[in-house]
Amino acid sequence: MHGVRLASEILNRYRELAPAAMTTLFDGIGTEFGADSATVKRAALAYSNEQSAATLLALQQAVEPPRQELFRRLNLAPGGTASLVDLRRRLLQGLGEHPSWAGTDADLAHLFRSWFNAGFLSLQQIDWRTSALVLERLIQYEAVHQIQGWRDLRRRLAADRRCYAFFHSALPDEPLIFIEVALTSGMSALVQPLLDPDSPVLDPADAKCAIFYSITNCQEGLRGISFGNFLIKSVAKDLGRRLPQLRTFATLSPIPGFVSWLASRSAAEVIGARSAKLQELLDQSQTGTSMPGSEELLALRPEIIRACAGYLMCAKQGGAPLDPVARFHLANGARLERLNWLADTSANGVRRALSMMANYVYRIADVERNQEMYARDYRVMASRDLQWIVRPLRSTTSGRQRDLGTQ
Amino acid sequence: MHGVRLASEILNRYRELAPAAMTTLFDGIGTEFGADSATVKRAALAYSNEQSAATLLALQQAVEPPRQELFRRLNLAPGGTASLVDLRRRLLQGLGEHPSWAGTDADLAHLFRSWFNAGFLSLQQIDWRTSALVLERLIQYEAVHQIQGWRDLRRRLAADRRCYAFFHSALPDEPLIFIEVALTSGMSALVQPLLDPDSPVLDPADAKCAIFYSITNCQEGLRGISFGNFLIKSVAKDLGRRLPQLRTFATLSPIPGFVSWLASRSAAEVIGARSAKLQELLDQSQTGTSMPGSEELLALRPEIIRACAGYLMCAKQGGAPLDPVARFHLANGARLERLNWLADTSANGVRRALSMMANYVYRIADVERNQEMYARDYRVMASRDLQWIVRPLRSTTSGRQRDLGTQ
Amino acid sequence: MHGVRLASEILNRYRELAPAAMTTLFDGIGTEFGADSATVKRAALAYSNEQSAATLLALQQAVEPPRQELFRRLNLAPGGTASLVDLRRRLLQGLGEHPSWAGTDADLAHLFRSWFNAGFLSLQQIDWRTSALVLERLIQYEAVHQIQGWRDLRRRLAADRRCYAFFHSALPDEPLIFIEVALTSGMSALVQPLLDPDSPVLDPADAKCAIFYSITNCQEGLRGISFGNFLIKSVAKDLGRRLPQLRTFATLSPIPGFVSWLASRSAAEVIGARSAKLQELLDQSQTGTSMPGSEELLALRPEIIRACAGYLMCAKQGGAPLDPVARFHLANGARLERLNWLADTSANGVRRALSMMANYVYRIADVERNQEMYARDYRVMASRDLQWIVRPLRSTTSGRQRDLGTQ
Amino acid sequence: MHGVRLASEILNRYRELAPAAMTTLFDGIGTEFGADSATVKRAALAYSNEQSAATLLALQQAVEPPRQELFRRLNLAPGGTASLVDLRRRLLQGLGEHPSWAGTDADLAHLFRSWFNAGFLSLQQIDWRTSALVLERLIQYEAVHQIQGWRDLRRRLAADRRCYAFFHSALPDEPLIFIEVALTSGMSALVQPLLDPDSPVLDPADAKCAIFYSITNCQEGLRGISFGNFLIKSVAKDLGRRLPQLRTFATLSPIPGFVSWLASRSAAEVIGARSAKLQELLDQSQTGTSMPGSEELLALRPEIIRACAGYLMCAKQGGAPLDPVARFHLANGARLERLNWLADTSANGVRRALSMMANYVYRIADVERNQEMYARDYRVMASRDLQWIVRPLRSTTSGRQRDLGTQ
Repeated sequence: MHGVRLASEILNRYRELAPAAMTTLFDGIGTEFGADSATVKRAALAYSNEQSAATLLALQQAVEPPRQELFRRLNLAPGGTASLVDLRRRLLQGLGEHPSWAGTDADLAHLFRSWFNAGFLSLQQIDWRTSALVLERLIQYEAVHQIQGWRDLRRRLAADRRCYAFFHSALPDEPLIFIEVALTSGMSALVQPLLDPDSPVLDPADAKCAIFYSITNCQEGLRGISFGNFLIKSVAKDLGRRLPQLRTFATLSPIPGFVSWLASRSAAEVIGARSAKLQELLDQSQTGTSMPGSEELLALRPEIIRACAGYLMCAKQGGAPLDPVARFHLANGARLERLNWLADTSANGVRRALSMMANYVYRIADVERNQEMYARDYRVMASRDLQWIVRPLRSTTSGRQRDLGTQ
Repeated sequence: MHGVRLASEILNRYRELAPAAMTTLFDGIGTEFGADSATVKRAALAYSNEQSAATLLALQQAVEPPRQELFRRLNLAPGGTASLVDLRRRLLQGLGEHPSWAGTDADLAHLFRSWFNAGFLSLQQIDWRTSALVLERLIQYEAVHQIQGWRDLRRRLAADRRCYAFFHSALPDEPLIFIEVALTSGMSALVQPLLDPDSPVLDPADAKCAIFYSITNCQEGLRGISFGNFLIKSVAKDLGRRLPQLRTFATLSPIPGFVSWLASRSAAEVIGARSAKLQELLDQSQTGTSMPGSEELLALRPEIIRACAGYLMCAKQGGAPLDPVARFHLANGARLERLNWLADTSANGVRRALSMMANYVYRIADVERNQEMYARDYRVMASRDLQWIVRPLRSTTSGRQRDLGTQ
Repeated sequence: MHGVRLASEILNRYRELAPAAMTTLFDGIGTEFGADSATVKRAALAYSNEQSAATLLALQQAVEPPRQELFRRLNLAPGGTASLVDLRRRLLQGLGEHPSWAGTDADLAHLFRSWFNAGFLSLQQIDWRTSALVLERLIQYEAVHQIQGWRDLRRRLAADRRCYAFFHSALPDEPLIFIEVALTSGMSALVQPLLDPDSPVLDPADAKCAIFYSITNCQEGLRGISFGNFLIKSVAKDLGRRLPQLRTFATLSPIPGFVSWLASRSAAEVIGARSAKLQELLDQSQTGTSMPGSEELLALRPEIIRACAGYLMCAKQGGAPLDPVARFHLANGARLERLNWLADTSANGVRRALSMMANYVYRIADVERNQEMYARDYRVMASRDLQWIVRPLRSTTSGRQRDLGTQ
Repeated sequence: MHGVRLASEILNRYRELAPAAMTTLFDGIGTEFGADSATVKRAALAYSNEQSAATLLALQQAVEPPRQELFRRLNLAPGGTASLVDLRRRLLQGLGEHPSWAGTDADLAHLFRSWFNAGFLSLQQIDWRTSALVLERLIQYEAVHQIQGWRDLRRRLAADRRCYAFFHSALPDEPLIFIEVALTSGMSALVQPLLDPDSPVLDPADAKCAIFYSITNCQEGLRGISFGNFLIKSVAKDLGRRLPQLRTFATLSPIPGFVSWLASRSAAEVIGARSAKLQELLDQSQTGTSMPGSEELLALRPEIIRACAGYLMCAKQGGAPLDPVARFHLANGARLERLNWLADTSANGVRRALSMMANYVYRIADVERNQEMYARDYRVMASRDLQWIVRPLRSTTSGRQRDLGTQ
């Protein structure tokens, strides 16, 4: 294989491949470009016999599949990086049906983890001065709270909002991940007012809180390469420098697994039997999307909040919180601060979490200590109120590992 | 290890380390952060017993030393990439005395090969509009034909010269490699006129040739990561696009190993016994630096040219040409076109090559074919004249592998 | 008055002025900052007595109103230029009611003509990579064929469209004027297909024609400062360089005054009596907006085209064509090439021009000669077809000067 | 005249003109493109008879020479602005011999004053990252304290130095004016240490003072268009924002006219008879350049300082200070703070000012008041020490106006 021209040609043909041909291609990369098992075995035996620098080096070289070099060469073509990210996106789509592609996926992930090391990303503020090409991508990609066209986007980029994204020099018009922030006077408990395109614009000089209300990974092909932790901290730092009057950096986060857990058997182990009213609400939330009249709801509030606290703090999988969003923020060093009732009254919010949302607080001074304690034994940092609520409950853990999914 | 702050702190301390402490540090990285031999052995045995996707993955993970992750995290700090490149520079300086650092060096080289994949580099034209910070680096780094201050540099960036460099986004003010090109009416045979700061400036519209007369790798810490091949082709492509009247892309290259080979025993095997006159000249070239009066020289010309052709085309090591510059350009797909007598009359030029220099021609249409033929059996492409000269000679190969060194 | 701070303060207060206060302000600038009539009279008499360099200089200084210096100083404030352009915009709005402001208007126009000299403008291509802030302005400003939101805009910036604007460094986010171009295979006769957001996108490599279908002056406050001529030529030059296969540069232009002229008495002098059918159509076009069924129309086509050619080529005011768009393009050196029937079937197009539009062609080789001939005696360059059509008609001129309006 | 092409052609020919042809050209522009005296006279008489808006407008139009329009059109050509600035530079060179060119000069100055309004300039910080093209200009232009090559320049751009320039978008690589600043711990009294390329570099975080030690107008063709006042204030503002610990903004300024005044008769009127020793020193300073041995000097110090204070504060021309540098800084609102003995011991410094230099202090809080008081009656703001020194002296004024020259 010789150089850029060949790489270009291969990628050009790849872009035009029909789905069936794509399958053949992935099969071929999987079988023809894997590590040679005889060579690996020889090197493995040699190492087993003698653990020297030389046998280690030989083993390291033997286990690296030739497709890594293939991908490095394809990357030389103009647009090569984008094509490879796209290639993995398609590969992942078929991975369920073709488990033999896992090795290729692992190799791509390995390369991308190196190439997209966060030290190579540039943090860019996105605002109304940004290129329409990039802004259009935000509209397409936003996964947490859908953007309803340009008018909605414009409000999300107004004076009391901030949006930041990470970019890589090889994908100049493609945000890798972006975060949306609302500057507010107090810690937001409700998400709909934040999303209302007609809401009044606050003077940012009066803001005391920065509320991270949405964070979206944009590139399917970079799944599993984690940018979110680094992004949140970079953004908090930048905001703190530009707006020194900010006192609180907090999220307003969904609790995606709450309802499905609450409906499961393990919930009972944590919080005891559900009331009939709650059971009724649960059933309803799955079929319809509306919440019942307010009086009835009012009566259910304490039970739901207790259940939600139980879910976030006591439901575990392998020691870590079961809820993927909780896992993400707690591992980053945030503290679970407050649970908010009727916080997300959209169909999605009700269906997945009975309208509950959580505030996780990032206190710069505590983040590293929290992170260490979480890393040591999955210690969940939470406010005193929440700790008090879950005191009578006991922890449980689900049997199987669950995927973190998008953060 | 938690994030950017810690990485910054480590790198700040590293920058202030005394040489002795540096040695301790490199020893520590070498021993504490290497692959765990027990774990590797276990995984090696497991793979030997059963060659499955799972045992391969486990083996791949076992052989990756933890210092790779260490370096990836250090890279998160501001200026992290530059510090790591510098770290390898210092490591390489001590590698001779500390062979145990070779594993660390290999890991850094592995990372850098990934990070500095040529697909991530940006080709920038350097001219008098470029930042003084970058231009100063050219003056410092130029290794082939030293730049004598700003006046000399200015001439090398005049209208009939071109200079290009590769940059990486993480090292914005640091050229990785740069190449200097002279636009000329014919293929240059002599280098001193090209370097003369007072030489008249040609109208680039009248140029027919682009002469690559110097190519310099700038970063000691990136030794072995090859950019030169990609740079030459990118530059030829860019020049061809901007100046479509250019007919010839050629180098005017040193022949660094000629004299030392000529003085060696193996030369005789190729070209037979040296004349007494040539022997005298050889002795002289090592002690003094001047060439003898022209008449005497004239008589020696045919013998020297024959010897030089023999050196470049018949002296081998492991099949490849012995001369590192020849190896570089021939592997890139160039053709050895012409040998030039009295081409570099500087002390260096006489001492190393009796004033001989070579033109290698890059013909876009032939480059890929040449490259393939060279890759297959080290076939040396050369002009008919040179082929004719070496017809009576026979090839020889030196016993040991020699390092390619800087290109 | 001392410097930037004072200028800033004045402009800040100005921005908050109520309309009544604005009137007082403009009155004040008109009376307090005008040229001193006693001084001017003295200098005028001195010059009348003796025509020397000294008396001329004194007179020149005397006639320059102090408000010119006032405006030059206000321009020092951050955002000063934008405020002054806005000030003139408001002044122009009230000029009809306050004829005494004409002097101030003349001074501002004089300054702006100097400041916005086309040599200081930068031509920028506008595409989907442009800032949303600027794109939003296009949506707001487009006057000829309204842009119906972002989807419409996106089509107008697709691969077979071009959009260019002039910017001034003091108004970085404000286009001064912009032009929209369609790349087509033949000279467009109908505007609706060009404006259809769902129309197929042509490969620009196949385009033979560049159709200028809309040109919009953006800044009311710069009324009378002409950029259009310079813009069209700069764009034609840039397009010709980038797409050398383009053969024709032409407009598809409205004929805004056709219906109102046709309904006037002077039309009869040129084209004779209108047919009853045409009269009926004319009446209809003013009340309703639909065109009658096609058969009826077909019969009217020759009469309307003849009338339209008569309007563009024979109806004059003070020697120049009565139609402002014709005046603009003919003065720029274009040639009236073709009249298009059912070319703009929008309500506006029917009401103003019975659906007729014109193609003016810019042939680079002829532009200067055409311009000279027009400048000499308003000679109208037109295709042979159109010349033939108007041969039997006679020219007429309207009594009063009409404003050119927006181009 | 039709557009850009013609303008380009004219300017291209202009650039190649021989000096004699240049004279013919300037004569032609002076006579053929001036205001038509008959038209002006008619308009002047009309205005004398009736002072109306219409007669004023007519007069204003009549007195504007057609060459203003000529220059506006030449400005359309690429590089037009640079050519016109160059044209005035050459015109000024010949103005002494050709007084008839004064009208053309006045017209160009009028245009440039409008075009180069300080509101259109961009303040750029110059450092080692700046383009070599621009840095080379600084070396060429620096007029106050010559830059001795790149090494000297590099020290002037080190961490404890700042350099700022104004640029205009039409002359992108041409600084219009630049200022050099030293960040120091105390108010500098001596200039040689500031200029020493080997002086130690201060940590800018420890700086308390910003010393403006050199300000240079770069464009001869913009003579008389004043940027210095605006530049000093913009720079002080920017420095104050970036380095809030700065306490003092002061100049270290030459006193160019001191010796020649001291040798004149009017000095005696202010300070009385000179001592014999001073007379001797004065004579010496003109012939040689060295200052006498220190003991002798020491004795002269009080007399020289008194004389210098007398020169700066009591020697006038038409009310304003006789010294051009004093005039510049006092008019800008600075205060004369301190006189420094042996401050500039270069040949120039001794010859022109017996080694004396002055500190003028810019206190942001006082600048506007000072400026007003100076504007009202040339009131010289000075420190109490200096006021005390000149108490016994009396003011004097030179008969003729002197030019301010370069600032």
